[in-house]
Amino acid sequence: MLPTLRVMSSYARLIRFLPAGASKPLIGEPVDAGLDVGIATYEGKPVEVNVLSGSSVLSPGERTGATATVGKLLSPLAAEEVGTIRCIGLNYVDHAKEANLPIPSVPTVFYKPATALADPFPAPTVIPKSFVADNAADYEAEFVVVIGKTAKNVSEANAWDYVAGYTAANDVSSREAQFATSQWSYSKSFDGACPVGPAFVPASQVKDVTQLEIRGELNGKVVQKSKLDDLIFGVPRIVSHLSQGTTLLPGTIIVTGTPAGVGWAAQPRTLLHDGDEFRVFLSGGVGTLINKIVEEK
Amino acid sequence: MLPTLRVMSSYARLIRFLPAGASKPLIGEPVDAGLDVGIATYEGKPVEVNVLSGSSVLSPGERTGATATVGKLLSPLAAEEVGTIRCIGLNYVDHAKEANLPIPSVPTVFYKPATALADPFPAPTVIPKSFVADNAADYEAEFVVVIGKTAKNVSEANAWDYVAGYTAANDVSSREAQFATSQWSYSKSFDGACPVGPAFVPASQVKDVTQLEIRGELNGKVVQKSKLDDLIFGVPRIVSHLSQGTTLLPGTIIVTGTPAGVGWAAQPRTLLHDGDEFRVFLSGGVGTLINKIVEEK
Repeated sequence: MLPTLRVMSSYARLIRFLPAGASKPLIGEPVDAGLDVGIATYEGKPVEVNVLSGSSVLSPGERTGATATVGKLLSPLAAEEVGTIRCIGLNYVDHAKEANLPIPSVPTVFYKPATALADPFPAPTVIPKSFVADNAADYEAEFVVVIGKTAKNVSEANAWDYVAGYTAANDVSSREAQFATSQWSYSKSFDGACPVGPAFVPASQVKDVTQLEIRGELNGKVVQKSKLDDLIFGVPRIVSHLSQGTTLLPGTIIVTGTPAGVGWAAQPRTLLHDGDEFRVFLSGGVGTLINKIVEEK
Repeated sequence: MLPTLRVMSSYARLIRFLPAGASKPLIGEPVDAGLDVGIATYEGKPVEVNVLSGSSVLSPGERTGATATVGKLLSPLAAEEVGTIRCIGLNYVDHAKEANLPIPSVPTVFYKPATALADPFPAPTVIPKSFVADNAADYEAEFVVVIGKTAKNVSEANAWDYVAGYTAANDVSSREAQFATSQWSYSKSFDGACPVGPAFVPASQVKDVTQLEIRGELNGKVVQKSKLDDLIFGVPRIVSHLSQGTTLLPGTIIVTGTPAGVGWAAQPRTLLHDGDEFRVFLSGGVGTLINKIVEEK
């Protein structure tokens, strides 16, 4: 179990990365507060960071005084930290409508295993060969809540106390597998089906989560766009619901649902194929999560 | 990641336990090959074991020459080993019928987080207060497959190579929560919703898995009973299906579905309440997993 966060609020945002030529992940704070680290990495521009002493964004420690250049950008949390990934389905009114599903009265919950976690670009999103033939791989831009301390039976009123911060994810799915049975988890659980990042923004840095904006961009075209005030179930309700009778360990990530505009519902359908590029942009300092699509041969 | 198993076949069966007065789990082989360790523990009879040098049933090591008496029986695998628990729903024809659901043509997959893992008696099955009011807690006796080495894109023909062994579980559910949304995981994920044990039987000890028998017993009455040849999707199909594009790490447990006779479908309904006792018996050496039901106040 990880220690609870203490010094979180002193950093504007944090990234996990490998320094050039090194194999041990470090935690750092980007020197340029305005830089979109996802886009900079994609464009091959150097990302300079103040290196912190901790080994997790949940316990980042203090500034070491050293700086480093990002060699490889990693998901803000490691697979060992996230455990079973919690996901909320049908959490935007317009997306429930485009999916021809009723507006839910309780949160629709499914999971991904930690093995689905993936890094931002240059890590690809690999569609497994077992799903390539289905021609049904799809994207979902999502806002991610990171749990900072052990949560169980949390009330909505106290839910914010357990939220360490935010990042973004793509909830990659194979739609044929999703609708082949009543249960969705399997279709969204393959290795790499949950790219997360690029940056982690501590909760204290965001005054009003509902004012954040999320966008999904397929090959440079905005296909999903929403403010978080469109969430059917907001952060307090989700954290409270998931913690009823159930321990959420520090590092647990909650992928909170996707706005309208998924490829499966588009006219015509715009599914993911080899060479496509999907971007998830989240405002508030998180930036742009970019992954190229690769079809496994 | 755990080492792959090597010496597995030299033991008839293994348990994980705390010796009396100790807090460090050990792996051991029961001295009495015919003893049902679940029932012996329940009845307060001493369970003597040959202590092994390893710290996991997946890497049990060698006999140390020491013996010990079980102080507390533990789930054969630790939470850190099992990761996200894979579960198959609707995997017995008669259960799909009693649930008024069609016989599936592909496996119905849902998950439980590792925090749901629980030990055999004396560990209770605690129904969270959030679910007690629903009066819908139910049992499901299930056969468990334990993955022994990293599996990905495994064919049905090769699936047995990845199976380390077997144990039993109770897939505890809250039926109101299960049917409140289309997704089942949430209703089966509370802390303690997956008691597992009492013993782990290495795959090499079982000639024909389909000849094993499973029973569920509520307060001494047999309510579920089946041979494993009634499984709609057998072990090779399940392991192959779950591993498509998806890494199954060593220690992953697969809870393979429940036979007919769940309380929700019984006439009249027989749901779980404070003081009830549920037993899962699996033949082949696994024995009887016993848990008393406690309603959280």
